[in-house]
Amino acid sequence: MAATSLIILAAGMGSRMNSDLPKVLHPLAGAPLLHHAMQAGRALQPERTVIVTGHGAAEVEAAARRFDPDIDTVLQAEQLGTGHAVQQAMPLLAGLTGDAVVLFGDTPLIQPDTLERMREARAQHAVVVLGFEGAGRYGRLVMRGPELDRIVEYKDATDEERSISLCNSGVMCVDTSLLADLLNELRADNAAGEYYLTDIVAIARSRGLSCGAVICDSRETVGINTRAELAEAEAMFQARARADALENGVTLTAPETVFFALDTVIGRDAIIGPSVVFGPGVTVESGAEIRAFCHLEGCHISRGATVGPFARLRPGAELAEDVHVGNFVEIKNAVLDEGVKVGHLTYLGDAHIGEKTNIGAGTITCNYDGVNKHRTEIGPRVFVGSNTMLVAPVSIGRDAMTGSGSVITEDVPAEALAIGRARQVTKLGMAVRLMDLFMSKKKKA
Amino acid sequence: MAATSLIILAAGMGSRMNSDLPKVLHPLAGAPLLHHAMQAGRALQPERTVIVTGHGAAEVEAAARRFDPDIDTVLQAEQLGTGHAVQQAMPLLAGLTGDAVVLFGDTPLIQPDTLERMREARAQHAVVVLGFEGAGRYGRLVMRGPELDRIVEYKDATDEERSISLCNSGVMCVDTSLLADLLNELRADNAAGEYYLTDIVAIARSRGLSCGAVICDSRETVGINTRAELAEAEAMFQARARADALENGVTLTAPETVFFALDTVIGRDAIIGPSVVFGPGVTVESGAEIRAFCHLEGCHISRGATVGPFARLRPGAELAEDVHVGNFVEIKNAVLDEGVKVGHLTYLGDAHIGEKTNIGAGTITCNYDGVNKHRTEIGPRVFVGSNTMLVAPVSIGRDAMTGSGSVITEDVPAEALAIGRARQVTKLGMAVRLMDLFMSKKKKA
Amino acid sequence: MAATSLIILAAGMGSRMNSDLPKVLHPLAGAPLLHHAMQAGRALQPERTVIVTGHGAAEVEAAARRFDPDIDTVLQAEQLGTGHAVQQAMPLLAGLTGDAVVLFGDTPLIQPDTLERMREARAQHAVVVLGFEGAGRYGRLVMRGPELDRIVEYKDATDEERSISLCNSGVMCVDTSLLADLLNELRADNAAGEYYLTDIVAIARSRGLSCGAVICDSRETVGINTRAELAEAEAMFQARARADALENGVTLTAPETVFFALDTVIGRDAIIGPSVVFGPGVTVESGAEIRAFCHLEGCHISRGATVGPFARLRPGAELAEDVHVGNFVEIKNAVLDEGVKVGHLTYLGDAHIGEKTNIGAGTITCNYDGVNKHRTEIGPRVFVGSNTMLVAPVSIGRDAMTGSGSVITEDVPAEALAIGRARQVTKLGMAVRLMDLFMSKKKKA
Repeated sequence: MAATSLIILAAGMGSRMNSDLPKVLHPLAGAPLLHHAMQAGRALQPERTVIVTGHGAAEVEAAARRFDPDIDTVLQAEQLGTGHAVQQAMPLLAGLTGDAVVLFGDTPLIQPDTLERMREARAQHAVVVLGFEGAGRYGRLVMRGPELDRIVEYKDATDEERSISLCNSGVMCVDTSLLADLLNELRADNAAGEYYLTDIVAIARSRGLSCGAVICDSRETVGINTRAELAEAEAMFQARARADALENGVTLTAPETVFFALDTVIGRDAIIGPSVVFGPGVTVESGAEIRAFCHLEGCHISRGATVGPFARLRPGAELAEDVHVGNFVEIKNAVLDEGVKVGHLTYLGDAHIGEKTNIGAGTITCNYDGVNKHRTEIGPRVFVGSNTMLVAPVSIGRDAMTGSGSVITEDVPAEALAIGRARQVTKLGMAVRLMDLFMSKKKKA
Repeated sequence: MAATSLIILAAGMGSRMNSDLPKVLHPLAGAPLLHHAMQAGRALQPERTVIVTGHGAAEVEAAARRFDPDIDTVLQAEQLGTGHAVQQAMPLLAGLTGDAVVLFGDTPLIQPDTLERMREARAQHAVVVLGFEGAGRYGRLVMRGPELDRIVEYKDATDEERSISLCNSGVMCVDTSLLADLLNELRADNAAGEYYLTDIVAIARSRGLSCGAVICDSRETVGINTRAELAEAEAMFQARARADALENGVTLTAPETVFFALDTVIGRDAIIGPSVVFGPGVTVESGAEIRAFCHLEGCHISRGATVGPFARLRPGAELAEDVHVGNFVEIKNAVLDEGVKVGHLTYLGDAHIGEKTNIGAGTITCNYDGVNKHRTEIGPRVFVGSNTMLVAPVSIGRDAMTGSGSVITEDVPAEALAIGRARQVTKLGMAVRLMDLFMSKKKKA
Repeated sequence: MAATSLIILAAGMGSRMNSDLPKVLHPLAGAPLLHHAMQAGRALQPERTVIVTGHGAAEVEAAARRFDPDIDTVLQAEQLGTGHAVQQAMPLLAGLTGDAVVLFGDTPLIQPDTLERMREARAQHAVVVLGFEGAGRYGRLVMRGPELDRIVEYKDATDEERSISLCNSGVMCVDTSLLADLLNELRADNAAGEYYLTDIVAIARSRGLSCGAVICDSRETVGINTRAELAEAEAMFQARARADALENGVTLTAPETVFFALDTVIGRDAIIGPSVVFGPGVTVESGAEIRAFCHLEGCHISRGATVGPFARLRPGAELAEDVHVGNFVEIKNAVLDEGVKVGHLTYLGDAHIGEKTNIGAGTITCNYDGVNKHRTEIGPRVFVGSNTMLVAPVSIGRDAMTGSGSVITEDVPAEALAIGRARQVTKLGMAVRLMDLFMSKKKKA
């Protein structure tokens, strides 16, 4: 099969979003809308991907490159319609054969297998259009048997044509060299003075070329024009992700309260409690448990590990098998080896913790000196006492121990006890005298 | 325009709520039901507001005064119907001209512009009744063209009358001096032996006066009689508040998990993550971000600030621009100047923090001595080391620093380092010996 | 009335759950599905309960005994149908009179009063079947007046029979000695080669015995075969529990975000905020308040107590009247006497706290030495300063005080002040010099 090219239209301003952020950069499932279209297209293993930018071009380009540094971009300086937008991309596809698939940066829910079906349908048709069963003011696909005869805009449609339930999504798959040719014939002789991509169907038909349609679930073709529509698309994404997780054998005790990111991966028989938020880049292995009220980003949780409730794992948190992270604990850029326990009220950042080490409640890696960040290295089977301050850079050897309430500023050798605290002094009767003093101050005040 | 008066009926017991709390004090969106009616009425800029109290009169009056100290109250000692309730209020309106608007303390969702439309309709009619499209056992508004001919109670209605879809909400707008006059003609010659306010329509008509109706969305007229109805009203309030926020350009990644208060104000392009609860008195400026699992009350969050996840801002928390408040952090009655960072596991109460100061993890303002509360003052560009205890009253000068694990009891001058901790002692081999000891105790136990 | 026996079928694998966990052990409302069936049956005060196990028999038996140690189990080694399953249980019911009720371990939502109605209906009928109004591929109950004439499987039903809306749930109530007799006549002469319990209706009828049906809400008979169905059942359970709580006078500000366990008990006029998760074993008295984002298991909260937001109460947490537990606080196996306050960032485990004691922010009971757990005893009216480490075993007498930042390793007598911290040292100008040093290191790096 010849290579496929992707053209993703991402130039629109999205004024109905009422936002300074370009529309395609609004987040859905933790990723910009544009990334969703790019991810769907990626399944076609495109040889080239061209993002057509316009409003906020620099921001949009930067976001696109974060997802895939190998994309090309082209600026559509004036917004003269979808046909005009695709025309801008064509020079970058010069000399390429195979299919060109046109996607929209604000249509995030399209599924890879739908695009695959479009590409397969190209064997029978020069142009393949993606349709969906719908109503409303969408253009209609007028079929003649398996052939797409023409696309009629809603405002130009007769009552009979409006009664057709097959609507146009705008997504297309066309032979790349033919596409360039068809675009050259587009005319802006309409009320808006714009070049419409959909007109290439009529042009192809006038040449006697076959056009066809592939039909998908109408939820895939949802376009985003307002924040309310974005919220509905988010709900659709989450509904699908939750159903997929259940199907894949994940236990979700309250699916409607769990929020997945575009790239969340969760293993079979993992347990996810209520109110868990997955940011980007999280993998959870089979049999791990995430309890209620957890917030996870850029982290890996291995088999048998338990997390939460009330835990936050930030990018670079790597939990090996049977690690336990409890409540009010934050882990950032830290590797916790097998069986580590971090039960309560702790911050571990820029650290490596050896296997079976126990981190006492209230422990803090003091990784920042106001200017630089430093690392903490803790060996296996260490007992870190409650409220230990680990002033990085610092290391603690295997089987060592720290006394609770200690500030550890020097490395601790293996098997040693490090302690740094003042001896307790007990003053008989002093509590009562102090309280009397405080009460007398209050009366004066 | 002559001044408007408000009469709000708030005497009912609400026995179906199954509660010791008077019905109109049950909370909706963080405020008593009564406050909602008062807020809707406030938009009319009333010259006088009279709350008719009955069950739990003292509590109801106190709650009403918290919303507006200038209201009047009158006790309806016996519950003899809505007409009787309004009669109690009339002496307080003696001598006032203009319109009297009658609202209900248990009907919280009415919109200000609906009341405004009623007042405008008074130009054509002596009495204006608020209606809604509905079914069920409500009284029906029998119209004759634009004229309200009469109100028929459901139980007295013919089948034909019951098929009328225009229902009576009970809310009315009447010329104040006419109202007193009409009320005097009310009779309690019905099965319940009560004086019905709605009967004034028939009395006005019998005098040849014109009556009219204004129609509103049926969701506005929802009355609360049970906790289930209260929960439904809460859902309606939140649905409207979420839709409004989206319309106003706020990013809500999971709107269905965000709970607003009656007075929440959020700027355009602010970002609100999942599971955020707004208590009363919160303002969030444009471009601020509230991450997941935050609980906010009585606080202000400026442009560019980021909060959470897992943060709690309590009354008096003021965050200037670009402040960062991270996870497991509580802020109460504290002003954080521009660029302050409070990342983790911290309590700041009764404090002022200067710009660009960094508060280390585990910091606590020890603001309570068991009797009195004291203040902590921290200057700009201070580096507060992790786990610093700031024993108030105490102040730390600009550009100063505290060592991690220090208890700061004395003021720290500008540029100084304050430290208070025991030197670390490391005892070789001691950890192993201690563990052996603990294990032997376990065996004995 | 003669004693009732329960037979609960719990042998199925549940392959559509896509899980290593036996189906009846998947959790609903914090308890295994099997416990729900057992709880419904318990209301009949059965003389004997037999659980028929199969897949994962040991795990299932252990889970059943956790709910009720007095049950019997029998292994159905081969899965030869529901009739065969019940046959395995009969030897354990030998000699018993009264009714046998057959329940299913994967049908968790059946209500006790439905079972009671079945038992009552036994006065008129030898066999009573539980039906529900439904459609789909369920067997149909063919009635002749009040008599159940026969049960027809969907696949064997005529179109007319399929139009019957009364469906078979499979749940039955039969005279115990008759049941053994009827089971003996079952034949596996069907396509699946299985013994069907439902065939006993035809056998009973062929003997001229009367059969009858009791009809329940179709939501009660939901069976769980997939995780999606489990999620739906969880939603149904929670919807009912929330409605019940509202009906009972509990304030739920956002009912749809509160998750109850099977055994949660909450008093009238208790207030439950948004996003509260109840694990097993929680009781909340009238007038207590649980604020947003709390996670509760195995704990008791008394009248007037306030908890959260962001609090975690673990098994053994006992809060007396007017206790206050604030944010980022974890309580485990600890009794807090009347009026105790624990406001912020604290871990109390294995402890007893006397009345009116105030626990400062950042306090930790260091209850674990790496091997053993130890107890902390704190008397009444103690003031525990912020960030106090209580190294257990340790006790603090009444009216005593600890200085903030102290590590308490020795018992503190009543009225004494215990303090253990280094004196603050302030080095003028040192902060600036240190920052210069850190900056120069950064430049080199």
